[in-house]
Amino acid sequence: MNSALAVDCMGGDHGVSVTIPAIQTFLTKNTVARVIAVGMPDRLAPEVERLARRFPDRITLEPASQVVAMDELPQSALRTKRDSSMRRAIELVRDGRAVAAVSAGNTGALMAIARFVLKTLPGIDRPAIATVLPARTGRVWVLDLGANVDCTAEHLLQFGVMGAALVRAVEGVSEPRVGLLNIGEEAIKGNQVVREAAEFLAASPLNFVGNVEDIYAGAADVVVCDGFVGNVALKTTEGLAQMLATFLREEFSRAWWTKLAAMVALPVLRRFKDRVDPRRYNGAVLVGLRGAVVKSHGGVDAYAFGWALERAWEAGTHRLVDRVAEQLAALNGGSAAENTAAPAPSAG
Amino acid sequence: MNSALAVDCMGGDHGVSVTIPAIQTFLTKNTVARVIAVGMPDRLAPEVERLARRFPDRITLEPASQVVAMDELPQSALRTKRDSSMRRAIELVRDGRAVAAVSAGNTGALMAIARFVLKTLPGIDRPAIATVLPARTGRVWVLDLGANVDCTAEHLLQFGVMGAALVRAVEGVSEPRVGLLNIGEEAIKGNQVVREAAEFLAASPLNFVGNVEDIYAGAADVVVCDGFVGNVALKTTEGLAQMLATFLREEFSRAWWTKLAAMVALPVLRRFKDRVDPRRYNGAVLVGLRGAVVKSHGGVDAYAFGWALERAWEAGTHRLVDRVAEQLAALNGGSAAENTAAPAPSAG
Repeated sequence: MNSALAVDCMGGDHGVSVTIPAIQTFLTKNTVARVIAVGMPDRLAPEVERLARRFPDRITLEPASQVVAMDELPQSALRTKRDSSMRRAIELVRDGRAVAAVSAGNTGALMAIARFVLKTLPGIDRPAIATVLPARTGRVWVLDLGANVDCTAEHLLQFGVMGAALVRAVEGVSEPRVGLLNIGEEAIKGNQVVREAAEFLAASPLNFVGNVEDIYAGAADVVVCDGFVGNVALKTTEGLAQMLATFLREEFSRAWWTKLAAMVALPVLRRFKDRVDPRRYNGAVLVGLRGAVVKSHGGVDAYAFGWALERAWEAGTHRLVDRVAEQLAALNGGSAAENTAAPAPSAG
Repeated sequence: MNSALAVDCMGGDHGVSVTIPAIQTFLTKNTVARVIAVGMPDRLAPEVERLARRFPDRITLEPASQVVAMDELPQSALRTKRDSSMRRAIELVRDGRAVAAVSAGNTGALMAIARFVLKTLPGIDRPAIATVLPARTGRVWVLDLGANVDCTAEHLLQFGVMGAALVRAVEGVSEPRVGLLNIGEEAIKGNQVVREAAEFLAASPLNFVGNVEDIYAGAADVVVCDGFVGNVALKTTEGLAQMLATFLREEFSRAWWTKLAAMVALPVLRRFKDRVDPRRYNGAVLVGLRGAVVKSHGGVDAYAFGWALERAWEAGTHRLVDRVAEQLAALNGGSAAENTAAPAPSAG
């Protein structure tokens, strides 16, 4: 079995100083995986050589002469950065040399290049970005998170299909519960698109559990929404969590006796923090493509980037792309064989 | 000056057992306000008589023979519940007998009845629901929260106008910073409607501060969004906050020593909890109507309902409706006089 991850080592705010330590930890924990480190040889070669001594035959360097900037426009990155580390990493997936690509580079460019290089699966209009979040019970995958705004009901149905296949592949859940993010106001149950999407989802072979108002309730394994709405939910989550953390810190540092209380409570607060640590949820999956691509946040540390590597490993080795293709085929009443993914990811 | 609040005492999940204690506390704290308690006399009369002895001339009963059910459809409530406590309370505002109405009844029915009885202000297509939330610095008002889905750019502009007037009236901020809820993905900066709304807001006399990704950052006094998006942000906030509170409680009750730590940390945790207590933010304002109406959550306790009374008092006595009308007139280049609100709220 192909077991290599293609890692864009230059992407993100911190580049090599974050990606290389994360790869080192990943290769220590996972004794099967291999890594193809993609980037500028002058910066990367010494690091890769060092790791290759420690992990023989498990890390190689793939040269790339360019880097996509964090604020670069997708179309510009697509046209002018044909030898970027981001693009080379995705091409390794296309060519069957890697099971998945990981990059902390800019989302727009990554999506545009991934679409261009890998192409979408048959029956998919728009790839989506999916991420996993903690829920009251278990975890929940949410898509789309911003790749697509102004979605139609058909797009939301496709997100449901892709999300269910993703959860089946990555979480090993056989009949994932698919929910539709909606509002519960008595006045109006959602907008036109969402109402129509609910009908499509209910008529599909998916295990559709209806409307979901609270992502975190644990009532669904997959929550489907327009990219605008999903991105707002994600940013609201991040903003609120940061504000609450700040307030909690302020209260505990207000006086000598609150600082004392903080010391006593520290182990408990640390366990709580670990449990909801956003770094553990780093690594969004681009789904609907003929290959697995994972996007890490740009500003993260090595611990968080390591989670993106784990997610890419799961997606790449658990037949994510094939499963999405199969689920699409089931939806369209065809056979999985007709709609199968490009041979690349499973052929290496 | 008219100083009466019309309170639907029957609304919400708990009715009189919540509304009456809240009114008692409100009348104790606020020595100017009067309350018109609206509801079924057999249930309400003994309570009102008791309070009237304690607060002479400051509470009266307004009989209503019906109650709008929490799950009743707006159109049904409008047609069949013409003598409901909700409707009578709003009619007291229309007739100039009260400065504002408060109800914990169902949102859809309240909006439908308020629109029908009070009518919208000139230049307003759709009234909106606005609520206040804590922010990193200060507070932030968000609208719309679910009254309107599928908003146009013009509607978002109107929300900006109404929100700015609301903050000016209630918070006393002279040039409220108005932000537009948007997503910051590099790929696509928002959808078509939001992009157009940003142009309208930038060209308006409002103090428009641009796109806002994180409601809680404190970068704006008012954040404007489509009702679907706003409702998702609110439900995400509630869901996440509840989940985090549950996790924190679980960690502190895991073992004897964590319980001990909880006891030590309790005063600090309590201060933190008070600071972000959702009950303090209870009371959403229906804006764009020719009269002030405040909606309390349905399932709240007397403390939270008391905050809805405070919010109604502020809206009713700080010329909310007049200010929205003035701001609309400024937007349209007309004089405030032409567009003035119905005389009712300030005529009593």
